[in-house]
Amino acid sequence: ILFPGGKKQDSCTLGILERLDAGEIVIGDGGFVFALEKRGYVKAGPWTPEAAVEHPEAVRQLHREFLRAGSNVLQTFTFYASEDKLENRGNYVAEKITGQKVNEAACDIAKEVAKEGDALVAGGVSQTPSYLSCKDKAEVKAVFRKQLEVFMKKDVDFLIAEYFEHIEEAVWAVEVLKESGKPVAATMCIGPEGDMHGVPPGQCAVQLVKAGASIVGVNCHFDADTCLKTVKLMKEGLEAAKLKAYLMSQPLAFHTPDCGKQGFIDLPEFPFGLEPRIVTRWDVQKYARQAYDLGIRYIGGCCGFEPYHIRAIAEELAPERGFLPEASEKHGSWGSSLSMHTKPWVRARARKEYWENLKPASGRPYCPSLSKPDGWGVTKGARELMQQKEATTEQQLKELFQKQKF
Amino acid sequence: ILFPGGKKQDSCTLGILERLDAGEIVIGDGGFVFALEKRGYVKAGPWTPEAAVEHPEAVRQLHREFLRAGSNVLQTFTFYASEDKLENRGNYVAEKITGQKVNEAACDIAKEVAKEGDALVAGGVSQTPSYLSCKDKAEVKAVFRKQLEVFMKKDVDFLIAEYFEHIEEAVWAVEVLKESGKPVAATMCIGPEGDMHGVPPGQCAVQLVKAGASIVGVNCHFDADTCLKTVKLMKEGLEAAKLKAYLMSQPLAFHTPDCGKQGFIDLPEFPFGLEPRIVTRWDVQKYARQAYDLGIRYIGGCCGFEPYHIRAIAEELAPERGFLPEASEKHGSWGSSLSMHTKPWVRARARKEYWENLKPASGRPYCPSLSKPDGWGVTKGARELMQQKEATTEQQLKELFQKQKF
Amino acid sequence: ILFPGGKKQDSCTLGILERLDAGEIVIGDGGFVFALEKRGYVKAGPWTPEAAVEHPEAVRQLHREFLRAGSNVLQTFTFYASEDKLENRGNYVAEKITGQKVNEAACDIAKEVAKEGDALVAGGVSQTPSYLSCKDKAEVKAVFRKQLEVFMKKDVDFLIAEYFEHIEEAVWAVEVLKESGKPVAATMCIGPEGDMHGVPPGQCAVQLVKAGASIVGVNCHFDADTCLKTVKLMKEGLEAAKLKAYLMSQPLAFHTPDCGKQGFIDLPEFPFGLEPRIVTRWDVQKYARQAYDLGIRYIGGCCGFEPYHIRAIAEELAPERGFLPEASEKHGSWGSSLSMHTKPWVRARARKEYWENLKPASGRPYCPSLSKPDGWGVTKGARELMQQKEATTEQQLKELFQKQKF
Amino acid sequence: ILFPGGKKQDSCTLGILERLDAGEIVIGDGGFVFALEKRGYVKAGPWTPEAAVEHPEAVRQLHREFLRAGSNVLQTFTFYASEDKLENRGNYVAEKITGQKVNEAACDIAKEVAKEGDALVAGGVSQTPSYLSCKDKAEVKAVFRKQLEVFMKKDVDFLIAEYFEHIEEAVWAVEVLKESGKPVAATMCIGPEGDMHGVPPGQCAVQLVKAGASIVGVNCHFDADTCLKTVKLMKEGLEAAKLKAYLMSQPLAFHTPDCGKQGFIDLPEFPFGLEPRIVTRWDVQKYARQAYDLGIRYIGGCCGFEPYHIRAIAEELAPERGFLPEASEKHGSWGSSLSMHTKPWVRARARKEYWENLKPASGRPYCPSLSKPDGWGVTKGARELMQQKEATTEQQLKELFQKQKF
Repeated sequence: ILFPGGKKQDSCTLGILERLDAGEIVIGDGGFVFALEKRGYVKAGPWTPEAAVEHPEAVRQLHREFLRAGSNVLQTFTFYASEDKLENRGNYVAEKITGQKVNEAACDIAKEVAKEGDALVAGGVSQTPSYLSCKDKAEVKAVFRKQLEVFMKKDVDFLIAEYFEHIEEAVWAVEVLKESGKPVAATMCIGPEGDMHGVPPGQCAVQLVKAGASIVGVNCHFDADTCLKTVKLMKEGLEAAKLKAYLMSQPLAFHTPDCGKQGFIDLPEFPFGLEPRIVTRWDVQKYARQAYDLGIRYIGGCCGFEPYHIRAIAEELAPERGFLPEASEKHGSWGSSLSMHTKPWVRARARKEYWENLKPASGRPYCPSLSKPDGWGVTKGARELMQQKEATTEQQLKELFQKQKF
Repeated sequence: ILFPGGKKQDSCTLGILERLDAGEIVIGDGGFVFALEKRGYVKAGPWTPEAAVEHPEAVRQLHREFLRAGSNVLQTFTFYASEDKLENRGNYVAEKITGQKVNEAACDIAKEVAKEGDALVAGGVSQTPSYLSCKDKAEVKAVFRKQLEVFMKKDVDFLIAEYFEHIEEAVWAVEVLKESGKPVAATMCIGPEGDMHGVPPGQCAVQLVKAGASIVGVNCHFDADTCLKTVKLMKEGLEAAKLKAYLMSQPLAFHTPDCGKQGFIDLPEFPFGLEPRIVTRWDVQKYARQAYDLGIRYIGGCCGFEPYHIRAIAEELAPERGFLPEASEKHGSWGSSLSMHTKPWVRARARKEYWENLKPASGRPYCPSLSKPDGWGVTKGARELMQQKEATTEQQLKELFQKQKF
Repeated sequence: ILFPGGKKQDSCTLGILERLDAGEIVIGDGGFVFALEKRGYVKAGPWTPEAAVEHPEAVRQLHREFLRAGSNVLQTFTFYASEDKLENRGNYVAEKITGQKVNEAACDIAKEVAKEGDALVAGGVSQTPSYLSCKDKAEVKAVFRKQLEVFMKKDVDFLIAEYFEHIEEAVWAVEVLKESGKPVAATMCIGPEGDMHGVPPGQCAVQLVKAGASIVGVNCHFDADTCLKTVKLMKEGLEAAKLKAYLMSQPLAFHTPDCGKQGFIDLPEFPFGLEPRIVTRWDVQKYARQAYDLGIRYIGGCCGFEPYHIRAIAEELAPERGFLPEASEKHGSWGSSLSMHTKPWVRARARKEYWENLKPASGRPYCPSLSKPDGWGVTKGARELMQQKEATTEQQLKELFQKQKF
Repeated sequence: ILFPGGKKQDSCTLGILERLDAGEIVIGDGGFVFALEKRGYVKAGPWTPEAAVEHPEAVRQLHREFLRAGSNVLQTFTFYASEDKLENRGNYVAEKITGQKVNEAACDIAKEVAKEGDALVAGGVSQTPSYLSCKDKAEVKAVFRKQLEVFMKKDVDFLIAEYFEHIEEAVWAVEVLKESGKPVAATMCIGPEGDMHGVPPGQCAVQLVKAGASIVGVNCHFDADTCLKTVKLMKEGLEAAKLKAYLMSQPLAFHTPDCGKQGFIDLPEFPFGLEPRIVTRWDVQKYARQAYDLGIRYIGGCCGFEPYHIRAIAEELAPERGFLPEASEKHGSWGSSLSMHTKPWVRARARKEYWENLKPASGRPYCPSLSKPDGWGVTKGARELMQQKEATTEQQLKELFQKQKF
């Protein structure tokens, strides 16, 4: 019933909304900063994408892998590529690598690879230090507009405003991106409790759609289970407001049942001890199915999603989509390639029931299964920090930092 | 005290033994079949390296990442590239991709990338289906000799016989490789209990050195803790026999305290549910230090080792080696880059004590920490298989398969 | 600051409300059916208290141990001792052991032991099969009245209606008990989600107080953390309704963070595999402190609470109460008795910080930390049951059983 | 096939060796100091049995419960009741409670309860402070002889030398006890690595039998799995030496796979955080079956064993023994009593397969499954201690303490 290969479909001349209107399932890509950090091209902490200029071959290869895995959208590697963020992290960026260069290089690479398969290119913006340090609306919008100019010059297919913790800033971003006339998708990195000021997901979705987003949802900060809960609330919010939009989810590839409101960043394991939380391909297949059943039609991943995770989405939804991704030539569905293994008891694992029911061991008997998240009031780190600042009470410190909106 | 960058050293014209003789620490590379499986270019089960021909850019990029991470040796991507193995898995290999082409392409790619930094190229052979199906010494040696011809033609720097479960076959491989006159390293995929016929590690090491290996050790199948125990036994065996050789270790990047004699293949999680067992960079730093303290001077990784794991070896041993690898420009030692993070409690993680003492949670409260390994007599899979074969007792089946030596 | 011993205080002539009015902290007792099941006198499943007649010495000894541990209230061992329950479980009760005999024997034993220390005797009733099988108000009240007659004849100090899942039945019980003119305490075995018909804890508390209860709270079914959340909701409900009552909590001595709405009964481990969930004395001290801080003044335990757990409540609150319980002569506060241990590293554990921070290992590396609760729709058991009944759909079966209100 | 009840058998006039000679399975009792500590009558640290004098009713009740559960032997509650130990812990013992009084009271209580069923009384001695502080053979023997005098006066049925870490002292104890002419059993609290001076279990067994013991084995310090390994080594040692003796095992009721050589005392959870390690009744049934299969015919328990654990031994071996213990009237085999439960999904647990395969969750997701044992060189406690002593190096401290043989 499945067509071999996933090469160039007729749909490739169709835009994102035409595809969704036609009932297609659009598969997003995975997490660039995390994958490239492990490959040696991105620095954790700043998380900035200057590698687009410094090591284009590494960025190109990752795009290609996601494309082979089934991605229909290649997001330009422009996360945290706003001018203010790059300046902020200036000491990490060689002198002549301007924001403009990074954004242009990222567009060029994505467009080049997109031609190799059936994918659209989306220009992406994300939350800014300007907003967090309380710059006004005009200033923040100016930052987004600068990136948008590059996206327009390079003529990307559509635009994504992603990774916003504050609905106010997300709305500003959408408003700027809509100036282009291109379709806009918007995702927030929030959980079911809502944005950092407590605006619930349903209201966030409504505001984003009213600002002009055609596709809304969540990305990053939480695992698939949590993200789907949040998207469900968004869906219900839109229905209540009688608004229409496509739904989108790009969760973490880490199990984070123990997260607090700000997500995985507050977990003690972030970002260098998250390995035991990495999801399997089977976890991803379950996510893809649940996302589909919830009505989400733009299904991708965020930090931690490697190409094989994206392939798992494409394989799970192959019956609905009618074809497998190219990379499935190197993957048997549900472990079937193990039927070629040397040892008979490994061959016996070449079946769906085995992998579906496996409860994988961590091999770490001295470690717990859950962590208590850090954050104000709980973390030793925060207390230590207090000693270095003038703030004499935790409350004062909290206020000090809240002004800066992290 | 550390020199910035890890670019071209004077040593690059030196061979593997000259380096080791000079007291250098040689850093190996990581696991190609596992990394490329996740990137979409290798099929689990057969685990064959035809990607060297089909997708050279993907193989090249992975070599480059290991080089940037600090590898001094680029192993040709010729694991399971013996003619008999490739034939065996024939249906997965496009018609015209002969063993010769795979081996040649793998050499070309490795040599091309090696020029970008300070690395030697090692041609690698591994255990063969011919031996496992009881072909005689001459036949098995002929298989190795065919790969060696390519390595000689392409003039690799030295040779590695790796991933042998049977010392007899390993010795044959070393004997063939020594015909070249080039230095030979030999590693077995065994644990402290010894090879599949019960030859203890110490005796294995003695036989390998007597056969001509200058460097001996272990790779694959077990985690670092277990591998170091095995190498220690090898070291003691060599000392007792008054033989000299350099020691080498390339363990898994998975925690496997629950393995049986045949290693991680028998764990229920192999190969598609191993994620919670993946080691952190801090686990690797601990391994590198312990390996060094044990006297091992060729320190690398095997399945599961990604570029950032190799970088962790190079960073841990930077004081001894006097320099950091190139990829460290994108990595602060012991998480120091987090001092640039937005949130103060994450900035508080920018220190060695934090990561050294962290017991990372799995985020999987419904999963155990250890698994019982599969294998004869225990596995449901094996029992099911019996029903499909003529063998009516488990014993008969065991014998049936033992003839084939898996 | 603490007075040695906990013998007969002047307060012993005071009733329960006089004590609470005077600001005393009243300590309840622990779990009789679970403790006596382990000692060999109660059968799991029926959980009926015929041992009061069959083996009075065993019941007497357990009362005595709780008294020594600090209990101020000895509850008559009359759990599930309503006539309808005992009949229901008839095959387990020797012919001549009538409900009247069980209730009378239980009163006699409790009163006898109470004289040995500073404790009141409370007659207890709990939910009935009559209610669950939909008998009407008059019938159900008649069942409670029969037990009350015994309590009046034996002149217990006050009355407790405990272990109710349905607020309606709890109210009926309180109404009957209030006919006696004695003080009535009432606890429900519900969590923060409320009773089995979804009546929230705050409303349950209000109804209980309006029916005549002077003390309200929760017992059984959930761990301390969950119980305190529920009592907090009850407290808020009472405050909103401007009603006054004392608060009471008697949680499980098992960690049950993974419970569903019906509590620990639905956990796969109930009742014969709960051992790894048993709380330590330090967990209990934490609970006692939190209960006190929440304003609860009747603090005890339910299933799983052994005498040493009750002692931990008394020790934690000794500063507030001004004295230690008798059994503390055999217990050093916070492990201080370990200073007498033979091995120096065990002596080093004789301090509060050690036990307060210990994260105790389970010694069970093949077991998970959490379970998925059974219940409708999830349990294999339920599905099997369906096959034995005429009900052809799960929905039908659910309805079939809901009529019987379990 | 099973006879109801376990009352008085004809065998009750038979001695321990006659029973064993006749092929009977003898069931021991459980752990007194731990059970009575939880009930409030024994102090952890000193672990001395003065409760026999102070609270005879509590000791009597525990004996009775073990008897009901199926014990054929009631050990006098004389653990650590040697005069030197009681003096050593003097401040805990009221002035007039001499060793003689404790030993006499313990004998009286055991003999009184033994008459209620089919049980023998065994007088027990255990390791002494005199030996640990390097007193000579004559002095140590004098300590044992003093207890033996009481046992002779009270005419116990046989004698047990238990809980010895040093074979030398155990042999001295056996020699003294043999002076009585009564049968002697001897158990050591060692693991497969042997006694504290490294004498292997096989040699320990040989020495004990040569000294006069008719029954040898292990008790305490390790879980059932480990104890059975040790007894197996003892069995092999005796066979090799062509000696005959009955085998005996009384393990902990705690899972301790992570123990070091000195057993559970070195685990960080000892003794106040062991709850999550407590074995279930099903674990005990498995142990009983394995012990029986190994040829052990005196099967009991030590610390942590409660009456229901002993009942589990008796129930598992009921087919071999031909009858159930008295307490089984309150216990359905393999959970069958749950068929009376209110909720259908709990009724579905009334079967062997359910409990046999259950992997019980700990309910503690923030805790690990294994711990690293304390001990010299690892423990913070030891280091702190060093600071209080003159010893300036750990080595010095180790020697200092080794002289005292703990």
